[in-house]
Amino acid sequence: VAHELQPGLRDQLNQSGGGGQFLLEDISTDEIERRRATYEPLTESVRDLIDATIRTEVDEADVAKARALVDEATALLRGKQIDGAYGIRYTSRGESMPWGNPVIGIRNPIAPPLFVNRDETGRYWSDFTLGAAYEGPSAHVHGGVLALMLDHVLGEAASFDGTPSVTGTFEVRYLRTTPLGPLRIEAKTERREANKKYVSGHISDANGVTVEASGVFIIPRWAR
Amino acid sequence: VAHELQPGLRDQLNQSGGGGQFLLEDISTDEIERRRATYEPLTESVRDLIDATIRTEVDEADVAKARALVDEATALLRGKQIDGAYGIRYTSRGESMPWGNPVIGIRNPIAPPLFVNRDETGRYWSDFTLGAAYEGPSAHVHGGVLALMLDHVLGEAASFDGTPSVTGTFEVRYLRTTPLGPLRIEAKTERREANKKYVSGHISDANGVTVEASGVFIIPRWAR
Repeated sequence: VAHELQPGLRDQLNQSGGGGQFLLEDISTDEIERRRATYEPLTESVRDLIDATIRTEVDEADVAKARALVDEATALLRGKQIDGAYGIRYTSRGESMPWGNPVIGIRNPIAPPLFVNRDETGRYWSDFTLGAAYEGPSAHVHGGVLALMLDHVLGEAASFDGTPSVTGTFEVRYLRTTPLGPLRIEAKTERREANKKYVSGHISDANGVTVEASGVFIIPRWAR
Repeated sequence: VAHELQPGLRDQLNQSGGGGQFLLEDISTDEIERRRATYEPLTESVRDLIDATIRTEVDEADVAKARALVDEATALLRGKQIDGAYGIRYTSRGESMPWGNPVIGIRNPIAPPLFVNRDETGRYWSDFTLGAAYEGPSAHVHGGVLALMLDHVLGEAASFDGTPSVTGTFEVRYLRTTPLGPLRIEAKTERREANKKYVSGHISDANGVTVEASGVFIIPRWAR
């Protein structure tokens, strides 16, 4: 089947740097919207359930009832399912659907999710909120969760020029603990040298930056 | 109320480095086991639901039914709940209950969870398995998720001598992509200099190390 793909995407599909598979789905924009409308509200409900599961103090009887409802929902959903993980899906027009992603995936209940914006200067940013599911120190975000968010958004910022890249090294500097609640993340590629991109970023709360990160992202051999 | 606490714990309770609160619960070992038996199976069911939510291909009608069941479970669980996040809880005997933690928490559906072991040489390790919820590159673990796991286990390894510490800097080096499936994580404190501990670790699959990490952990001023 011949598809009209954006430049470079076919190579990317055929030569996944990770050894995984890219899935090409020949679906319309309307079908994408239909799927989003179907699955996104379910994901949001499961996120709410995750929070309730951590915080509940109800007794054994109610916990058992809730668990039976959850198991019933799971059995329904498993009636027809993908074999394996969600994968990286593209439409035939080259639209990416990273819906299973643990940071930005609209179908992954683990993702807050972040909606990452890009401005005209190549700066990537997102306003997001973290609750009980992301707690490390009491009432504060787990340091590793901050690293997860930074790794992802720095990776997006590394792709600013359209060339693919994979994380080589990644460093995080914790300035102070980060409270649960509303946060902002920002990242930008500082410079590109040959096949390396140097990206930096940070997370801040209302009182300023709490954690900084920098990463070296490498353009894989097949994409050079 | 006077409690018998292990050395240093009272200071830790009173002077949380993160500015958060430590909760002291005067409960028996039997009560801890009762709570574990009540809430751990619910968490496991929600983990299964998360996987099904990502992978399901059932139609709108079944998704709507599943969502209604999930919302009903959430409403039941919210009938009585903690105000805010789970927090860092200790029993009066100084047992820690990090049950809300996103890496090791037995009440947090986001956690795989890791069960971290320690051997007689101060090496910390865990065998664990990651599925669809942790996917970045197709069929492989999200790089940031690996950073999350490493940050946590390096932090545990930094506490080998009983002194508290917080992450100062943390660096991850990706050698190759890490497949979803069974993995091992290891970490050890290499040396301590004054108020700094130098910790290193890695994650490996059946074919060897895929990602290395090193971190500098700092003993907070109040604990020196």
